[in-house]
Amino acid sequence: MRIPVPLDHAPRLLNHGPVTLVGTARGDERNVMAAAWVMPIDFTPPKFAAVVAADTKTRELLLATGECTLMAPTDAMLDVTYAVGTHSGRDGDKFARYGLAGERGSVVAAPLIAGCACWLECVRVPEPHVEQAYDLFVLECVAAWADDALWQRGEWQFAAGGPRTIHHLKGGLFFLTGDRRQAQR
Amino acid sequence: MRIPVPLDHAPRLLNHGPVTLVGTARGDERNVMAAAWVMPIDFTPPKFAAVVAADTKTRELLLATGECTLMAPTDAMLDVTYAVGTHSGRDGDKFARYGLAGERGSVVAAPLIAGCACWLECVRVPEPHVEQAYDLFVLECVAAWADDALWQRGEWQFAAGGPRTIHHLKGGLFFLTGDRRQAQR
Repeated sequence: MRIPVPLDHAPRLLNHGPVTLVGTARGDERNVMAAAWVMPIDFTPPKFAAVVAADTKTRELLLATGECTLMAPTDAMLDVTYAVGTHSGRDGDKFARYGLAGERGSVVAAPLIAGCACWLECVRVPEPHVEQAYDLFVLECVAAWADDALWQRGEWQFAAGGPRTIHHLKGGLFFLTGDRRQAQR
Repeated sequence: MRIPVPLDHAPRLLNHGPVTLVGTARGDERNVMAAAWVMPIDFTPPKFAAVVAADTKTRELLLATGECTLMAPTDAMLDVTYAVGTHSGRDGDKFARYGLAGERGSVVAAPLIAGCACWLECVRVPEPHVEQAYDLFVLECVAAWADDALWQRGEWQFAAGGPRTIHHLKGGLFFLTGDRRQAQR
């Protein structure tokens, strides 16, 4: 079940560096792409940096609306994550093509895609220079959600054999998020 | 053994989002901190974005020299990774305190710390606005290295039960990099 996550915990949802899906919407159009180059950059308010290449439909919609969603897919979504990262929304609606279900966010109109481990609703903080020089976008998170089967007591709690977030190495090759280890002081 | 990695593969070393160590040096001074908020942002030349907080010794040395190293520690370095992330180099040399060994880079003077899975020698690309607004630094990688026991044929190859890179959740709680999965088209 999708439960709200306090905004001060939002950076922690992506702190371990999983691959993400970036959702966008404008009117009846909506799109989703995969992005490995996304990370938290601040706690209060929670902010993220994301690389969104210049020629993408996602960038067009992000710039047009100032909004997007960031989501961490699970290993059950491995194939579709790779597929939406290697095909363009300019070639047709990816939700229909890949059987994705999504409802609009609570604050932003961009989609929250079913089956993900977490969902962050974000607004663009305009930074034209780094957007143009590095395709780098600064996003402020305005609402956050997680699957309560995976996120409990403010932490990821992945069960053995259960769904996990995923990390992209290259060319459709991923690593599951692995076992937990607590550092000793 | 530390082997050179072609620069066009350098982004792939950190693509899966592991926690990093950031090494710096100025004359006889050297320092290391942990940073989870580091990611690739470009391929050619390879560039990375890294959050380095304003009050840190690392930032002082990075700004003074224009150089640093980025390294991915393994789970054998879990405790020391957390330790160097929670103590300041202003309180004394962390290499002595934590028994770290490091030699200077091949291009930059910043240290390559023994035991890591990979090492990236980087130079700062000055971006004063985002440095000041978000503590965000743009770094260009000028030399890259990996442990050939873990990096083979241009990929991370972690053996079952062997050393792995690590991902930080919060407060010294980490995830190992887990099992591999190949997406199907």
